[in-house]
Amino acid sequence: MITTCTVERYSRGGRTVRSGGGSAVAAEVLRIARHALTLSHVGVGDVSKRILLGRKLRSAQLGETLLPKRVAFPVFASDALSSVAYAPDEIFIILALAGVAFYSLSLWVALAVAAVMAVVVASYRQNVHAYPSGGGDYEIATANLGPRAGVAVGSALIVDYVLVVAVSLSSAAQYVASAADFFADHRVVVAVALVVFLTLMNLRGVRESGTSFAIPAYAFMVALIGTCLWGGYRALVGDLPDAESAALDILPAEGYEGTLTTLALVFLVARAFSSGCAALTGVEAISNGVPAFKRPKARNAATTLFLLGMVAVTLMLGVVSLANAMNVKYVDPHDLDRLVRSDGTSVGDDYHQDTLIAQIAHGVFDGFPPGFYFVVIATGVILVLASNTAFNGFPVLGSILAKDGFLPRQLAARGDRLTYSNGIIILAAMATALIIAFEAEVTRLIQLYIVGVFVSFTLSQLGMVRHWTRHLASERDAAERRRMQRARMINGTGFAMTAAVLLVVLITKFLAGAWLTVLAMGAFIALMAAIKRHYDHVAIEIAADESDKALPTRVHAIVLVSKLHKPTLRALAFAKATRPNSLEGVYVSVDNAETARLMEEWDDRNLGVPLKILHSPYREVVKPIVEYASAIRGANPRAVVAVYIPEYVVGRWWEQLLHNQTALRLKGRLLFTPGVMVTSVPYQLRSSEIAREREAREEARGYRGDLRQGRVREGGGDRDRQVQ
Amino acid sequence: MITTCTVERYSRGGRTVRSGGGSAVAAEVLRIARHALTLSHVGVGDVSKRILLGRKLRSAQLGETLLPKRVAFPVFASDALSSVAYAPDEIFIILALAGVAFYSLSLWVALAVAAVMAVVVASYRQNVHAYPSGGGDYEIATANLGPRAGVAVGSALIVDYVLVVAVSLSSAAQYVASAADFFADHRVVVAVALVVFLTLMNLRGVRESGTSFAIPAYAFMVALIGTCLWGGYRALVGDLPDAESAALDILPAEGYEGTLTTLALVFLVARAFSSGCAALTGVEAISNGVPAFKRPKARNAATTLFLLGMVAVTLMLGVVSLANAMNVKYVDPHDLDRLVRSDGTSVGDDYHQDTLIAQIAHGVFDGFPPGFYFVVIATGVILVLASNTAFNGFPVLGSILAKDGFLPRQLAARGDRLTYSNGIIILAAMATALIIAFEAEVTRLIQLYIVGVFVSFTLSQLGMVRHWTRHLASERDAAERRRMQRARMINGTGFAMTAAVLLVVLITKFLAGAWLTVLAMGAFIALMAAIKRHYDHVAIEIAADESDKALPTRVHAIVLVSKLHKPTLRALAFAKATRPNSLEGVYVSVDNAETARLMEEWDDRNLGVPLKILHSPYREVVKPIVEYASAIRGANPRAVVAVYIPEYVVGRWWEQLLHNQTALRLKGRLLFTPGVMVTSVPYQLRSSEIAREREAREEARGYRGDLRQGRVREGGGDRDRQVQ
Repeated sequence: MITTCTVERYSRGGRTVRSGGGSAVAAEVLRIARHALTLSHVGVGDVSKRILLGRKLRSAQLGETLLPKRVAFPVFASDALSSVAYAPDEIFIILALAGVAFYSLSLWVALAVAAVMAVVVASYRQNVHAYPSGGGDYEIATANLGPRAGVAVGSALIVDYVLVVAVSLSSAAQYVASAADFFADHRVVVAVALVVFLTLMNLRGVRESGTSFAIPAYAFMVALIGTCLWGGYRALVGDLPDAESAALDILPAEGYEGTLTTLALVFLVARAFSSGCAALTGVEAISNGVPAFKRPKARNAATTLFLLGMVAVTLMLGVVSLANAMNVKYVDPHDLDRLVRSDGTSVGDDYHQDTLIAQIAHGVFDGFPPGFYFVVIATGVILVLASNTAFNGFPVLGSILAKDGFLPRQLAARGDRLTYSNGIIILAAMATALIIAFEAEVTRLIQLYIVGVFVSFTLSQLGMVRHWTRHLASERDAAERRRMQRARMINGTGFAMTAAVLLVVLITKFLAGAWLTVLAMGAFIALMAAIKRHYDHVAIEIAADESDKALPTRVHAIVLVSKLHKPTLRALAFAKATRPNSLEGVYVSVDNAETARLMEEWDDRNLGVPLKILHSPYREVVKPIVEYASAIRGANPRAVVAVYIPEYVVGRWWEQLLHNQTALRLKGRLLFTPGVMVTSVPYQLRSSEIAREREAREEARGYRGDLRQGRVREGGGDRDRQVQ
Repeated sequence: MITTCTVERYSRGGRTVRSGGGSAVAAEVLRIARHALTLSHVGVGDVSKRILLGRKLRSAQLGETLLPKRVAFPVFASDALSSVAYAPDEIFIILALAGVAFYSLSLWVALAVAAVMAVVVASYRQNVHAYPSGGGDYEIATANLGPRAGVAVGSALIVDYVLVVAVSLSSAAQYVASAADFFADHRVVVAVALVVFLTLMNLRGVRESGTSFAIPAYAFMVALIGTCLWGGYRALVGDLPDAESAALDILPAEGYEGTLTTLALVFLVARAFSSGCAALTGVEAISNGVPAFKRPKARNAATTLFLLGMVAVTLMLGVVSLANAMNVKYVDPHDLDRLVRSDGTSVGDDYHQDTLIAQIAHGVFDGFPPGFYFVVIATGVILVLASNTAFNGFPVLGSILAKDGFLPRQLAARGDRLTYSNGIIILAAMATALIIAFEAEVTRLIQLYIVGVFVSFTLSQLGMVRHWTRHLASERDAAERRRMQRARMINGTGFAMTAAVLLVVLITKFLAGAWLTVLAMGAFIALMAAIKRHYDHVAIEIAADESDKALPTRVHAIVLVSKLHKPTLRALAFAKATRPNSLEGVYVSVDNAETARLMEEWDDRNLGVPLKILHSPYREVVKPIVEYASAIRGANPRAVVAVYIPEYVVGRWWEQLLHNQTALRLKGRLLFTPGVMVTSVPYQLRSSEIAREREAREEARGYRGDLRQGRVREGGGDRDRQVQ
């Protein structure tokens, strides 16, 4: 026999080239009719989206890129810029341990963070050019350092996604408290409420669009740059007021009284620097999103990366400078008693300490409250958006890890809402647990943060160094070699820098909480390794060999009969159509009168199929059938037993509970019986339409993370074709 | 064509008469081999059980009855007798409202309860004779008063099962507190712990045996009758000591000071009587258990019922008499401040009020502490056993209701451990909620109790009256007519009496808590009616008619291919064996390199089957396949599309999570597609053995409620045959 391979392109709605022409047309007509129902939903929102995102794309046009820089920039900005909302605060909190005098170091610490940012951005520009496929750090580590490094990066990113949610929303809760004092004592409740809100939004599958990112991101930049510029101007003209906390003084914390040793000073500055490095999160997000950029993808992504780095550094330095200029006093919210008034009394626990940005905005816009509220609200919104990116990134990361067998394989396939929902709920649950355990205190959560990001940075930079070294071994062209050598140098610097920072972070934060992160990463690594091991074992067990070629020669078909109704008749008809070597109906009798009635009806109908009655006085249904099937197979070892099960298909979840449970259990049991195959013959009840419509609605919603992966499907291609 | 009906008797392990001799022998050999593995479990326990229960029965000997009276008596005793542990206490609590003076009425109230008991027992003896099938009150109400009355009885019984657990375990917690003072302040914890314990035992499927009932039931009877006799003897010789609370006095409750009006007195006595009627629960259990009795079933059941009634009445009168003789003072545990010492001071909340039986045993065995502990422990154990009967009765009731379509149908089939587990958990959750809400206080829980039992009593007696009236209409034989008329009179009296008691119970308890019971019953009735309505609608929709006879003429088979491994090869082989009109492999391509590799391998293997590639750039797997299947069907409306899905069968629950999730989702979707049938071709991995062995273990455990329904399978017939 000759094996033919017919290839057919499946596309999500574009033209479908099929071998059988007639069927394609029929299917097309059906599909158009079905989608015509959903047409009424096309409204104003779609038009505005089309303006912002440009012409919508059919998925058949796969090669086409998607996001121009002006859209890509805000899409990735929330993640990268939102840390300005809390990173400077943390620098001040650490320095405040030794008293106000050390605030003068804050600008130096911020400059050090900016320097690391510059190096990391430069390094990641290399990454983006070398690996434009969107696999990000995980792909780079796996390709160059092996799967173990890849798994380490994967688990580091998982941990960091959880922390992004916990830190961002805890910080957002602080801004809510700054805007409305009432919430100051309820920050845990606010943060958890925000988690719940994001969870529900994502579970409902609200689609992301460029607009939803652009407005808040640009608003935040306008707000913060505006504050810096106006504040700078007022400082120049000598009109900049002091912050609300300027009049206070800070007592050194226990252990920091008197003159500090050099070592203590270095450690203090290193801790401030570690916390400030929170500003670097979000850089790696772009390297995962390269496929979403307009061509030339890599170049555009690299430019966007550079722009984001610039803006982030500028905003951070601006905030730190203004805070210094306005004499803000900022301490760990646990140590408010170290904040003393000029008369030497402590402000006490009733004092509500606003965030740096809130204090700055309050002063800069002292005659103009809307300015203050605009800054605070824009900052809060960008923080919520930043944690939403974790809700989007989590399943994408999961699918990449699943494709390589480190997570359950069904995560790799798209469109499984159940799987995806589980991911959202797991992420939300872990973040909520952290928020509650750490009482929504950014200062304490930040101790756990950054470790994951820098593990991922360091491994990916090391991988890039290897990458260039490998390529240099075979590259002959001198110009190309020079380019590679320069890139290797940049990545090498990046590696040295990020490794050093990782070390500093681990040393300064380990006991303060980073141990928990390390522990969690270890647990995820172990879990992923175990899953991978299982898949590998199974793959070996089921690998095809030459021995397993014995073909079954006969098919014994049995149709399960519970009553003589349409589903049973259909199952009988379908079973007959397969022309098995033998065919019989099988009925489990638990009641003599009913059995007699069924036998009579069976005779009356003249079905041409014998009926086998299995008596089961104890009303067991599953066991008699399983044993009967085994018995047939036992008597005919070269035969297949085909069991046909009529099933009702219903649409509502509670209807599911009322039907087919026995069929389900039976199928479960029969699958353990060798030589048996189980066929479900569905009979669609009217209510099954409900489920079909629900499926269609669900599909129209799109999936998380589509936007930043270069997939925009505004309602699907079919609808598109109808509208335009 | 001629329809043949071959009838085969399926039996749980006895001789199997099969039409095909060869297959039967092969199956038998397999089955014996499999069961040989479990032989090692047969130990001493089995021998002792055999002594107690007599020769074990093969289920093939179906006609044979099971329980001789000496075993049936303890099996049903715990339910019927355990109420002696709390019913007298409640009589005293209510009478105590008006002060000690009214304790003299307690014996009269107890006699009234005994009179009701006598009438109810006499009535139920008629029920047992007329309906020996074990359907109990539900069957009688349904058959004679229609399904609405049946549903009312069903929901009344559900509510009462929950209350049996809550009341019995709360009372058991009181006895634990009597035995060890430490637990006095932790009765809720003790009661909930007992619920958890029973839940776990039942979830694990620990099998009931005659022994497990006989020892505690006889111990309880010995203990209580011994107490009454020894106490009676000591009273006769004038040696009976006073109870520990004898020296106390009781202040009347608010509203009961001064002389009572006649109406208030009547109401007080009626309340005491209502609470005392708790002693009547458990009578109906025997009418459900008639099939479990040795022949003549009905006669033996009626005799056992009579004996139980006698013992219950005797014990209750004994306890009440002794309590009076020993001057026990007993008040609502909420009103301990009404209990005053001779100097007029209240005993206060620190006073620990022991139950009546504990106080009596303490006094009667004042020189012999083991006697006291024996009585208290035996009472506690019988209470736990009584609530275990609810865990057993709940699924039996569920299966009866399910058979008639009032509950999800899968409850009707036996052997579904999952369904059964859900029932246990629901029962435990409801009972726990009640225990916590009512702080494990028997006095408050008892207000909710009895309503359900008496609804069921009343409806069943009314049904019996109708039953006899109907039979009298056609009966000619004079002797038989006389017998029927007498029976009708007894049932009529029973109806009048139980209806009157129900009315009294409702009036006296409604505001105190019975409204909750009525509400819950209403909710269950509504739920069951809705389920029934749904099944009826579906039955109409799927009823076979003559129009639906078009047979599909062609079978298009597609085999889903994910990789070329053994499961796929097996699916291909099985699909080929069915000789469909067309057969192709279908592969969803999400990665070009992998696809090329698969195509090459496919060609190499020379499988003789074409391979269709569906391109899915967005990594969707389910949708392309569903649409492809629809397209085939669309092009060939008279064909069936048979989709073969290779499935791995694994044994561990977490392995399930790692495999087949996509297959599961795909099957779910394909079932909604008309003209498609879905065939699972299982490939059993080595670990699937684990699941198979687990199944065998589970089956060996037996099911709840077997014992009292006349089903004892000590390890199954096969094993039996091997051992003897």
